[in-house]
Amino acid sequence: MRLNRLAILAPGLLGASVALAAKRRGIAGQIAVWARNPDRAQQALCLEIADVASADFSVIDGADAVVLASPVGAMPDLAARMLERPLAPGCLVTDVGSVKGAVVARIDALFAAANRSDARFVGAHPMAGSEKKGMEHANADLFEKSACILTPSAATDPQALAEAEAFWSALGCRMMQMPAEIHDGVVGRISHLPHLAAAALVAPSLGGDPSLARYAGGGFFDSTRVAGGPAEMWAEILLENRAEIAGPLQELVRELSELLEFLEKGDEKRIAAFLEKARSLREDAAGFRAAAR
Amino acid sequence: MRLNRLAILAPGLLGASVALAAKRRGIAGQIAVWARNPDRAQQALCLEIADVASADFSVIDGADAVVLASPVGAMPDLAARMLERPLAPGCLVTDVGSVKGAVVARIDALFAAANRSDARFVGAHPMAGSEKKGMEHANADLFEKSACILTPSAATDPQALAEAEAFWSALGCRMMQMPAEIHDGVVGRISHLPHLAAAALVAPSLGGDPSLARYAGGGFFDSTRVAGGPAEMWAEILLENRAEIAGPLQELVRELSELLEFLEKGDEKRIAAFLEKARSLREDAAGFRAAAR
Repeated sequence: MRLNRLAILAPGLLGASVALAAKRRGIAGQIAVWARNPDRAQQALCLEIADVASADFSVIDGADAVVLASPVGAMPDLAARMLERPLAPGCLVTDVGSVKGAVVARIDALFAAANRSDARFVGAHPMAGSEKKGMEHANADLFEKSACILTPSAATDPQALAEAEAFWSALGCRMMQMPAEIHDGVVGRISHLPHLAAAALVAPSLGGDPSLARYAGGGFFDSTRVAGGPAEMWAEILLENRAEIAGPLQELVRELSELLEFLEKGDEKRIAAFLEKARSLREDAAGFRAAAR
Repeated sequence: MRLNRLAILAPGLLGASVALAAKRRGIAGQIAVWARNPDRAQQALCLEIADVASADFSVIDGADAVVLASPVGAMPDLAARMLERPLAPGCLVTDVGSVKGAVVARIDALFAAANRSDARFVGAHPMAGSEKKGMEHANADLFEKSACILTPSAATDPQALAEAEAFWSALGCRMMQMPAEIHDGVVGRISHLPHLAAAALVAPSLGGDPSLARYAGGGFFDSTRVAGGPAEMWAEILLENRAEIAGPLQELVRELSELLEFLEKGDEKRIAAFLEKARSLREDAAGFRAAAR
């Protein structure tokens, strides 16, 4: 995998980490960054994330790969503006969005309407991140061994799919593929539900008094770590995927209600069985994760 | 703090870590371990946790400090058997139990009934641990900077309280004091609730398929880490403290139900406000924790 000009649109933590990883691994000759705000474009240059950066879309002209790195809600708009620019023939367009169904469908439709033979889109979700946000926390090793799910659709060009696979795996990802709808169900459970649970757990654990954290072992802080992430970005993700999240969230409420009932009845056997089931299921899960790495 | 003979009753991870920490820090001349099972006593010798070990209670005779290290449910029975043995004058008895109210009251009553001038009890909860169990996972640094809450009662001898403070802080703990009932409310929130939440989160995050963990970032595994702990021990703790846990658990269910409602209404502003409140409260909590260390 060797690109002449890799363009990254609206980088935050993920987009800037793509830039650093691509540079470190010698994948791209030049990295061009577009940012909505000129100060952010300047920051990309200062942080040595970009070789060229601008708030003018012409900075991406001639790119042979483009990564849409904005929050998911802004991606279709970015794709539309990108499709007004001249790109290198066969340009690969991919993204970092953590919800795929409706967004991928909108971008596919934009590509179909633009009727351009020189650009092909493949939806991607590199499952890496941090509770920190912003280019300044970017990390060239962020994608090392992290899962990246490609979500090809009926509109996806097979050659572009192979190139997207080569691009993300060159950045260090373990590649997987599934339809966008399946993806959204999977991440709704394994990623978005733990996020909601972590956020909901903070206040009841502190009972209105954050100084209770003086008595915390590791449990409270580990269990709520992901709730330290940027609120607006996550609100957008959760809302975009709400159809897939509602069911698992109801299941979680049922599980907690069941535990409450066992506690109120003083049913130690059932509490122990519940905890043992969770422990054993989590151990199986850890085994699957270790085997995949 | 210098003891001639430190006895540890029924050590698991915590009790054995007390032994290793006491040895490392030169606090105890000899460490005597009593275990219910002779094989466990032998194991304590092989692992160099004890200098002498036995399933016969006489092994603790002459101790000038005793640590009750069994699960909380077994502690009053251990205390009663200990009070049948000859101890060194002024022997300090303390424990590692993570629920205190009823257990401390029962042990105080046993001491009062035994009417012994040579032994004084001070309830303690060293807030350290691991999701691993057993002497084989003991660690001499386990208590380093971890909080240890002493729960003196009206029956507590002030001199013994000072000695308990000296003992646990010599092992590395940051010392705190509060009545047993306050303690149980605090740990019900900051420790037991996250444990329940972690256990309840496992199944809905996996949707019956542990192989979904192949797609997990760090969130699922961090959020559920404490659910990897020993089920029976935790069932006993949760049941013992159920009066304090029920309220916070109901609060958690309400928080999750609120999030579900916002999602179903598509109310992005309120979801963002909810997440931001959690993020900011957790940040305050992390500040209190850092300041306490």
